[in-house]
This record gives sequence, structure tokens and C-alpha cells, in this order.
Amino acid sequence: MPRPKLLETFPNPYPKRGYEIRMECDEFTSLCPVGGIEADAMELEQLEGGAPDFGTIFITYVPDKRCLELKSLKLYLWSYRNDGVFYERAVNRILDDLSKACKPRWMEVVGDFNVRGGIKCVISARVDGRGTRARR
Amino acid sequence: MPRPKLLETFPNPYPKRGYEIRMECDEFTSLCPVGGIEADAMELEQLEGGAPDFGTIFITYVPDKRCLELKSLKLYLWSYRNDGVFYERAVNRILDDLSKACKPRWMEVVGDFNVRGGIKCVISARVDGRGTRARR
Amino acid sequence: MPRPKLLETFPNPYPKRGYEIRMECDEFTSLCPVGGIEADAMELEQLEGGAPDFGTIFITYVPDKRCLELKSLKLYLWSYRNDGVFYERAVNRILDDLSKACKPRWMEVVGDFNVRGGIKCVISARVDGRGTRARR
Amino acid sequence: MPRPKLLETFPNPYPKRGYEIRMECDEFTSLCPVGGIEADAMELEQLEGGAPDFGTIFITYVPDKRCLELKSLKLYLWSYRNDGVFYERAVNRILDDLSKACKPRWMEVVGDFNVRGGIKCVISARVDGRGTRARR
Amino acid sequence: MPRPKLLETFPNPYPKRGYEIRMECDEFTSLCPVGGIEADAMELEQLEGGAPDFGTIFITYVPDKRCLELKSLKLYLWSYRNDGVFYERAVNRILDDLSKACKPRWMEVVGDFNVRGGIKCVISARVDGRGTRARR
Amino acid sequence: MPRPKLLETFPNPYPKRGYEIRMECDEFTSLCPVGGIEADAMELEQLEGGAPDFGTIFITYVPDKRCLELKSLKLYLWSYRNDGVFYERAVNRILDDLSKACKPRWMEVVGDFNVRGGIKCVISARVDGRGTRARR
Amino acid sequence: MPRPKLLETFPNPYPKRGYEIRMECDEFTSLCPVGGIEADAMELEQLEGGAPDFGTIFITYVPDKRCLELKSLKLYLWSYRNDGVFYERAVNRILDDLSKACKPRWMEVVGDFNVRGGIKCVISARVDGRGTRARR
Amino acid sequence: MPRPKLLETFPNPYPKRGYEIRMECDEFTSLCPVGGIEADAMELEQLEGGAPDFGTIFITYVPDKRCLELKSLKLYLWSYRNDGVFYERAVNRILDDLSKACKPRWMEVVGDFNVRGGIKCVISARVDGRGTRARR
Amino acid sequence: MPRPKLLETFPNPYPKRGYEIRMECDEFTSLCPVGGIEADAMELEQLEGGAPDFGTIFITYVPDKRCLELKSLKLYLWSYRNDGVFYERAVNRILDDLSKACKPRWMEVVGDFNVRGGIKCVISARVDGRGTRARR
Amino acid sequence: MPRPKLLETFPNPYPKRGYEIRMECDEFTSLCPVGGIEADAMELEQLEGGAPDFGTIFITYVPDKRCLELKSLKLYLWSYRNDGVFYERAVNRILDDLSKACKPRWMEVVGDFNVRGGIKCVISARVDGRGTRARR
Repeated sequence: MPRPKLLETFPNPYPKRGYEIRMECDEFTSLCPVGGIEADAMELEQLEGGAPDFGTIFITYVPDKRCLELKSLKLYLWSYRNDGVFYERAVNRILDDLSKACKPRWMEVVGDFNVRGGIKCVISARVDGRGTRARR
Repeated sequence: MPRPKLLETFPNPYPKRGYEIRMECDEFTSLCPVGGIEADAMELEQLEGGAPDFGTIFITYVPDKRCLELKSLKLYLWSYRNDGVFYERAVNRILDDLSKACKPRWMEVVGDFNVRGGIKCVISARVDGRGTRARR
Repeated sequence: MPRPKLLETFPNPYPKRGYEIRMECDEFTSLCPVGGIEADAMELEQLEGGAPDFGTIFITYVPDKRCLELKSLKLYLWSYRNDGVFYERAVNRILDDLSKACKPRWMEVVGDFNVRGGIKCVISARVDGRGTRARR
Repeated sequence: MPRPKLLETFPNPYPKRGYEIRMECDEFTSLCPVGGIEADAMELEQLEGGAPDFGTIFITYVPDKRCLELKSLKLYLWSYRNDGVFYERAVNRILDDLSKACKPRWMEVVGDFNVRGGIKCVISARVDGRGTRARR
Repeated sequence: MPRPKLLETFPNPYPKRGYEIRMECDEFTSLCPVGGIEADAMELEQLEGGAPDFGTIFITYVPDKRCLELKSLKLYLWSYRNDGVFYERAVNRILDDLSKACKPRWMEVVGDFNVRGGIKCVISARVDGRGTRARR
Repeated sequence: MPRPKLLETFPNPYPKRGYEIRMECDEFTSLCPVGGIEADAMELEQLEGGAPDFGTIFITYVPDKRCLELKSLKLYLWSYRNDGVFYERAVNRILDDLSKACKPRWMEVVGDFNVRGGIKCVISARVDGRGTRARR
Repeated sequence: MPRPKLLETFPNPYPKRGYEIRMECDEFTSLCPVGGIEADAMELEQLEGGAPDFGTIFITYVPDKRCLELKSLKLYLWSYRNDGVFYERAVNRILDDLSKACKPRWMEVVGDFNVRGGIKCVISARVDGRGTRARR
Repeated sequence: MPRPKLLETFPNPYPKRGYEIRMECDEFTSLCPVGGIEADAMELEQLEGGAPDFGTIFITYVPDKRCLELKSLKLYLWSYRNDGVFYERAVNRILDDLSKACKPRWMEVVGDFNVRGGIKCVISARVDGRGTRARR
Repeated sequence: MPRPKLLETFPNPYPKRGYEIRMECDEFTSLCPVGGIEADAMELEQLEGGAPDFGTIFITYVPDKRCLELKSLKLYLWSYRNDGVFYERAVNRILDDLSKACKPRWMEVVGDFNVRGGIKCVISARVDGRGTRARR
Repeated sequence: MPRPKLLETFPNPYPKRGYEIRMECDEFTSLCPVGGIEADAMELEQLEGGAPDFGTIFITYVPDKRCLELKSLKLYLWSYRNDGVFYERAVNRILDDLSKACKPRWMEVVGDFNVRGGIKCVISARVDGRGTRARR
């Protein structure tokens, strides 16, 4: 289960300046939801969960009053490791959890997932009312 | 401790011309603040300080009346070597110290830090009222 | 716990011919043994296990009477996902488990692991009496 | 079912000269054998067969009395399209069928298959008594 | 029809020195023999001949008493343009015609043909008794 | 000492046409001003001057009535060889000397200097009232 | 001497369509005007002319009523071989001769010359009233 | 001061097998010995030590009875951070300390250091009686 | 006409040491002999000579008592500019002229000529009794 | 004048171990000897010396009792800056001066010089009785 409680923040040391922070984690892994794209029933039984997914998460934001603490972000992303979740939900959930934790001026989360069943998938979402384009 | 007093400037030899200066230092190193992303308590005790961080600092500015003297800039950046500091504070602090020292027409500082805990982090900040985008 | 019992083999369809099979899995992940290179006590408590490691496993062998079944190999490699293990042990353990399962004429296993604490590590081992050089 | 009867040969126009022929087909496709690495039962039912595999086949030989006719080779390789076959069997089968058809001085077949379940696989086999190394 | 009579030679200006000449023609084109790999009957009717093949011819030799004249070599290679010929025959025929014309100490001809029907083909032959490996 | 008197010009053969001339010299060298970034007192004494700097100078301009003669430009750039000068002054001085000599419609000079003390520096300046961006 | 009379044209077969033609000749050579960048007096005496220059000429145009005939363009460019000419004049002269010969809707000529005296030079000119940027 | 006491080892889990371990640390930093290549007296006074050096350390070995523990290796390499040491001594010292700690069958250490004063330096040493070539 | 008299040499400053000198000239140009590969009669009339050829000349040698003086080598290679010569003769002639001038321990000359009539040609020759392979 | 007296050495800290040191300086510059490849009389008068040459110097050696001190090596190489010297003499002179200063087990020096007059030149020499091949 993703554990947003792991997330910690600290006061933005320069709150008046609109500067940008970009973070990139290429070791994101979660599990396919049961019945997912590559796992059949026998496998699931053996693994007591879904098949593993892998991908890279890109996070970009302009902080307002608080910044995300990196070590806690690392622990939060690790908490997906044994969680069965659709890509669409994972990306949006991360965006929600992180933006709730630090209330940025704006934030974008992009998930770039490894090929599964011959298909590559990239999801991108953003909070600030403006439209979003997937990262290419 | 960062030592802005190390910074020296010299009169801009061509103060009427709006020309641009870009500097890049790929040997920036500082220490994680205590409790940082990769150090545990035992390590800190052994090192008498936080774990080391590494990165590249990009500085771009248009000088006004004074220019940054390169040798003093080198010494100033070296002064972070034994300083425990969050990335966000380091980048904004460098921007503040340099812009206070030479009062440029505008200045941008980008810090591109090495992977820690599987996460890469890039911070970018700018003084001149315009918005800033992280270097990609 | 690695689960060698997951490994299945099938009769080598061409047992008289000395042909070579090479397999490469770039989604290998395991956990640091407790007290590992990047995890401190607080983190471990929160994760109920060690910090995650990532890497690529290269397997090359010449089959004798039996071949490794790919799907079962995939499940076997997945079984390291929640196992705390040193790199040296993981690579040699995989070599032992696979070679016990299919008894090849010879087999080489190389583990190329992601940077941890600023250090990259590559381990290579081989069964057949000949010396081994790490993959470069 | 692979159909070796599709293979046609023509008399080697220069049978006394030991020259080499290399052919490469990067459009090889077959089906996973039932229960294969990425397909579950429900899918198989819908596809009336296994999930598709893709790869490249490299064939090198020195002809003796007869040469392989290219158009018939193309048709022969196409005949794997709806055949469920392990990689090891496919590569060795192709080697057997082709070498039986044209009886070369020597022949090597390498199959370089796309990632399935996070694992890439390369098989190489040769007829002429000498050892074989997988293509890298 | 290939026209070896087009080939002209001139006396090797340095016949005592064992020097090497390498020539490469990436504009070789011929026609598939009737019923060839990609042409069906209707097409052939429309083209009044087979479908065109394209490739690169590499010629390397050490001259003895005479050298190949380049302009005549160009004309000779052009003479394959409306000729229906198997790759194997073309490469060996070129080797025969050229080596008959200039009687070199040794000569190698490699034909590297474009993909046809999803298959790429490389043929290499040599006169001097030593074995030949296809160009890779 | 830079010697602008070395610069020669010739009448623009096509003065009515707004065409562009770009020149690039990757063998620019000068000396650090005394007390420069990498030289200490003992070295300076031994060398009877500052430590050497190296870089590439890019010059782009649209000529008006006269063009810069290349051979004289080469001699002019060589005249910096034994001159102690800050990068900022060198680039602006070159821009001034060249634009005074040939009075172009506009001209840009960029100096891209080798790493010194771990810092790389790029300066760009332009005459024509428009703003300037450093070459990236 | 450049010989524009060598240039031939033929009627544009599609005069109503504004299509583009680009030609590139990387075997352009001319002679330095006497006193040029790399030749001294003794050399000139020995060569009975200036030192050779080498470069690539890029020609792009949209034809109007007539097109440039390629073979005649080749002969025209060869006619610079023994001509002593400044780069600026060569590029503009080519532009004038070609545009006079075929009266295109617009035409651009770029000359990218080999390094001489450590300096590389690129000249670009265009006829159609719009400004020109050098090819980069 | 380098602190070899930080080094920890663990029993080689597969002591009978001659397998290879390669480690690479691109965040090595130490200080120039006083009077080093880029620091003058004034700087040293300001920094209370020598100027910083940066480089990458490559370690390759075949373990015998014990393996190097990675986290302790990281701490050991960090202990050079405030140590003034010549490159030649650093590389040989690391080789001595590591080989004393784990007594490998053989070990090679290569130090590839960043440019200083316009000069790049690579040192390589090995224990096992065989000659050593620098890494290229 | 090639003018070997232009070649000058100077005493080898270190005649006892077997060191190697390699020179590369990518601005070699000569003329096709009359009736050459790309020129027809009309062209020749207009150009009063053959069509131009272009190529790169590679020279490697170990000097004995004398070294080739570079400036005179440049002038010697320029002297082919208006000379009509077959590639085979040019390469061997250069080898003869240079080796006669400086009597090296051994010397190799390779001529790598631009495509003509769709054919690329590389000639390589060597004086010292050993066999020669063309540069690839 | 090259000043070998600038060279300093220090005792090899590990004299019993045959380890290798490789150094690379890409900022070497000297002057053409008077009458050199690109300078004519008028230029020389204006520059009061020959035209500048540029290149990269590669030094590889196995130290015996003493090592070359890098800072003094830098000063020594700088001392060629205003020295007129043939390439052949420069490379051999550097080899002599360095090997005299530190008496290595063996040493190789390669000079890779920038294009002059359209010709590139690489010289390589070695002390230890074995033959030398130019760096390619």
C-alpha cells in the first residue's frame, strides 16, 4: 500500500522566489493489479500478488511554502513495491499525495513504464488547471 | 560554511553592452544535512559530518557594473565542501550570494545533482522577476 | 526467499548439439540485507525489510540434457524481490540454482547492479573450471 | 507447423569454391507454446493459439552442391507464424531443416528474440562439429 | 547479360610491389530471375523482366601484371542492370570475370544485397585457395 | 598586446546584399592576468607572465562596406598569445576591434574557454542593439 | 576564371508549383588570391598561382521558369579550380551567376570552407530580399 | 587521513569458485598535497588545506576467503575527502588497504583523475605479480 | 606534373630511435587521365585537361637518417593538382618519391579516393618487403 | 626554450610495484621554426617569432625510483610556448627530458598535432628498446 504518511516536508527556504524543482526516479516498481497484463492465475498464486511492473517517475514542481524532503520521497516511492496498481492510478495517486503534502504552486508527475506485452505506456498528470502533455 | 566574503568582483569592462556570461562547474560537492538521504547515524559519527553530495552548478548572467572574478568564484564554490545543506537551499543561496556580489541585470543558477537513493534532482532559480524552468 | 523450486526444465530437444543460450533480465530487484549500504534503521523499520536494489542479470549456458523453461526462470528471478541478499551471494546463488536445475555443460551468470552510495558493482561467476572475467 | 517441404534449392553455380552466404530475417514470428511465458488461459482461448513471439533469425552457411532458394526460405520462415514452439526448438529445427535441404559444408543459425516477461533470449546453434558461441 | 568484354585493363605500373586495391560500388542493380522472391506474374508482365534488386559490391585484389580500368569496371557492373540473376551466381560471376580479366595475385568479391521479402543476404567469394568469411 | 592595427579589410564585393560570414578559430590562446585562476607567484616568476588560457572564438557578422581579411584576422588573434587579459575583456575587445575595423551591419563574438579550476566559461557579446544569448 | 557561359538550363517541367531543389558539392576548390592566408612568396613562385582552398558549396533554390542543368553546373564549379578568389566573392559570384542563368523564385548559396591558418569560414548569401543566416 | 579501519569484510559465500567483482566509484575526491598543481598560497590559507581533486576509482578483484563490504568501502573512500595526497600514492594506498583487508586472489585499482592545469592523469596498479596497463 | 624536386628533408634529430611519423592530407586533388571515368570529350575540350579527382593520402613511416619537411611535402602534394594520373600510379609514385627522398626504415602510403562513377577506390602500398593491406 | 630544469620529481611511493601512469595534455603549443609550414616572412616580422602550432601530448610510463611531479610537468610543457621547434624534435626532446628526469622502466610520448597546410601529423616515440607504433 502506498503510504503517504511517509512523506515529510520542510519549510521552503526561499518562499518568495518562483523556482523549479525536478526529480527523477528510475527505480520505481509496483505490482500489476490481479489479472494484469502479463500474469496468469498460476503465477499469481505462486507470488501471492501480481506480476511486477517497472518504470521511471518524473516529478516537477514549483514549491510554495514547503518543499518535499528527498529521503521521505524515496521511502514513499518504495512503498509502491508490493502494491498492485494500474499505471493510471499510480501516477495520479503520486500527484495527489505529493501535492497534498507540500501544496506547490504547480506540480507535474509523469510515469514512463517498461514494455509489457509489447506495449510501452507513458502517463502524465498535472495540478494547476492548465492542460497536460505526456512527456515524449 | 559557504563563505560569500571570498567572492571578488571587478569593474565590468564594457558596462553599456548587454552581453552574457555562462559558467559551469561540474566539481561541486557539499555534505548532506544531518539525517540526509543516504547516511545513517553510524556513518555520520564516523565521518563527523553528513554524507557527501555531488553535482554540477550552471551560472548564467548579464553583468551590470561588475563581473564575478573566476578564481574567487572557484574558492566560494569550494567553501560548500564541508557544509551540510539541502539542495534547494544551496542553489538559492548561491544565486543570492552571487547576485548580491555583482548585482547583475539578471542571473540564473541551476544545480544538477547526482543520483541519491535512486533519485536525481535538478533545481533552478533566477533573479529578475521572470519565471524559471529547470534545465532539461 | 529465492525459490529454486519454481524452476522448471524441459528435455533439451537437441541434446547432442553443443549450442548456446543467452538470457538477459534487466528488471532484477532484491532487498539490501539489513544494515545495507543505503538504508538506516529508521527506514528499515518503516519498510519492514531492507532497501531495494536493482540490476541486470545475464545468463549464458550450453545445455546438456535439459533446458531452463523461461517462464519459470522469470518467476524464480521474481522470487528475489523481497529477499535481503548481498550481491555476491545473489549471483552465485542464481548460478548454483540454475546449474543444479538443468545441469548444463557450462554456465555463466553476471549481475550488473545499479549505483548505490556512489558505487557501481558488477559480479560474474561461472561453472566449468575455467576462469571468469566480469562483463565490461 | 513449420513446413520444410516449402524449402527449395537450386544447384550451387560454383560448387568447387568455398564461398559464404549470410541471410538475416528480422521479421520472424511464432506463437508461444500453450502456457508460454506471457499468455494466460483466457487469452489463449481468444487467440486460438499461444501469444505471438518476435525475433530475428541469422543464417550463415557455405554451400556444397546446392543453395537455398530465397523465396522458398521466406515462405518456410513464414510457416512458423501460427506455430507454438519453444525458442530452443525453433532455432535447432530451422538449422536441421535448412541443412537437410541443402547439405552445406557448414551452417550456423542464431535466433535473437524480443523481450518477454522482462527477459531477452538469444539461441545459437551450428552444424559442423565445432563449438558455437551466441551472437552478441 | 553481363558483358565481361566491356572490361579493360592496363599494365600494373608497379608490378613488383604487392600492393592492394579496394573498390566499392553501392549502386549495383540487377533483376530477380523470373519467379524471384518478390515478383509475381502480373508484375513481371508489366516490367518485361524480373523485379529489380539492389546491393553493394566490394572488390579487393592485389594486382599482378595488370590493373582493372575503373571506367570499364563501371560499365561492366552496369551491364547487370537488365539481367535476371541469383545473388550467388552474380557474386561468383563477377569474381570470375574480373579475375579472368586481370589475373590478380588474389581477389575477393562481396555482394551485400538489400532486404527482399524481409530477408537480407550477403555473399562473399574469393580466389586464392584460402577460405572466405562473409563481410559483416 | 592585442594589435588591432594588424587587421586589414577589403571592399565588400557585394555591399548591397545582406549576407552572413561566420568564422571560427579553435586555437585562441592568451595569458591569465597576473594573479589569475591557476597560477601562483612562483610559476609566474618562472614564466615571466601569467598562465596560459585556451579557447575557441566564434565570429559572425553581416558586412556593410568592408570585409575582414582572413590572414590579418589570424595575425590579430595570434597577437593575444602573450597578452594577460580577462575573458570578459578579451571577447568584448575582439568585438570592438573587429567591428571598428569593418563597421558591419551587426556582429557577434563568442568566446568558449577551456576549463580552469574546474570551471568552464562562455562569454558572448554583440553589436546592434539587440540582446545577446550565450552560445549553448 | 569562373565561366558562367558553361551554365545551361532547361524549362521547368512544373513551373506553377513552388518546389525546392537543393544541391551540394563537397569537392569545390579554388586558389587563394595572391598573398592569401597560407601561401608565402616562394611557394607562389613554385606553383605559378595561389595556394589551393577547399570547401563545400550548398545551393538551394525554388525554380521559376527554368532549372539548372546538373552537368553544366559541375563544369561551372570546376572552372574555379585555377581561379584566385576571396571566399566572399566566390559565394556571391556563384549566387549571381546561377540566379542570372535560371532566374529562380529564390536561391541561397552557402560556402563552407576548410580550416586555413586555424580559422574556419562559412559564408551564406541569398537572393529574394529576405535576410540570410549562415548554415550551422 | 585515509582510514583503512573503516573497511569491513564478510566471509566469501562461495570461496571455492574463482569469480570476479568489479566496483566503480565516480565520486572520489581528495585534496591536493600542499603546493599542489592548482592551488597557490593565498588559496590554501583561505581553505585551511589543499585544493580539491576529483576522479573515478575502478576496483576489480577475485575474492579468496573474504569479500569487501560495500558500505564500508564507501566510507573508506569518503575518508580521502579531506586528505592531501598525490595521485600515485592514493591509487597504490587504496590497492594496499583493500588487498590487506580482504586478501584477494588478485586485485587491480585504477584512478582516472579530472583535468588539472590542462593535464589529465590515469594511474593503474595491480597485485599479483603480473604487469599492469593503464585503463584506456 | 608531380615535382619530387620540391621535397626537402632535414637530418633526423634522433636517428638511433625507431620512432614513427604519421601524416594525413585530406585535400589531395589531381586530374583524371584523358578518357577517365567521368569525363567525356566535350567536357575535356572545355576544361583543357581531365576531370578533377579528390582523395585523402595517409603516409606512415619510421625515419632513418632524414625526415620529410612538412611544408615541402605540402607543396609536393599540391603539384598533382593539374596532373592527369591513375590512382594506382599516384599512390605508388608518392611512395617512391617520398621513400627516395628520405630513405626511411619503412613507409606506407594509402590513397582513399572519392566516389567516381558510383565506385569508391582505396589503394595502399608499402616499402619494406612485408605484405600490405588496404586501410579500412 | 624548453626548460627541463623546471621538471621536478618525487620518490616513487611504491617503487617495487610495476604500475603505470598515463598523462594527457591537450593544450600544448609551440612555434613553427622560422620558415615553417604556414608563416611567411611578413608575418614573422610582425610576430617576432614563428607561427603558433597546437597539439596534444600523451605520456605513458612505468616509474622506477621517482615519479614526475605534475605541476612541474605543466610548467615544463608551457616552456615550449615561445619555442620554435619541429614536431619530430619536440616529441623526442620531451621523451628525453622526462625520461632523464625520472628514469622510468619505460616511457612513451605521442604528439598529435593540429592540421597545418592541410596536413595532420602524429609522432610517437618510446624508450625501452621495443618498437613504437603511432597512436591511431
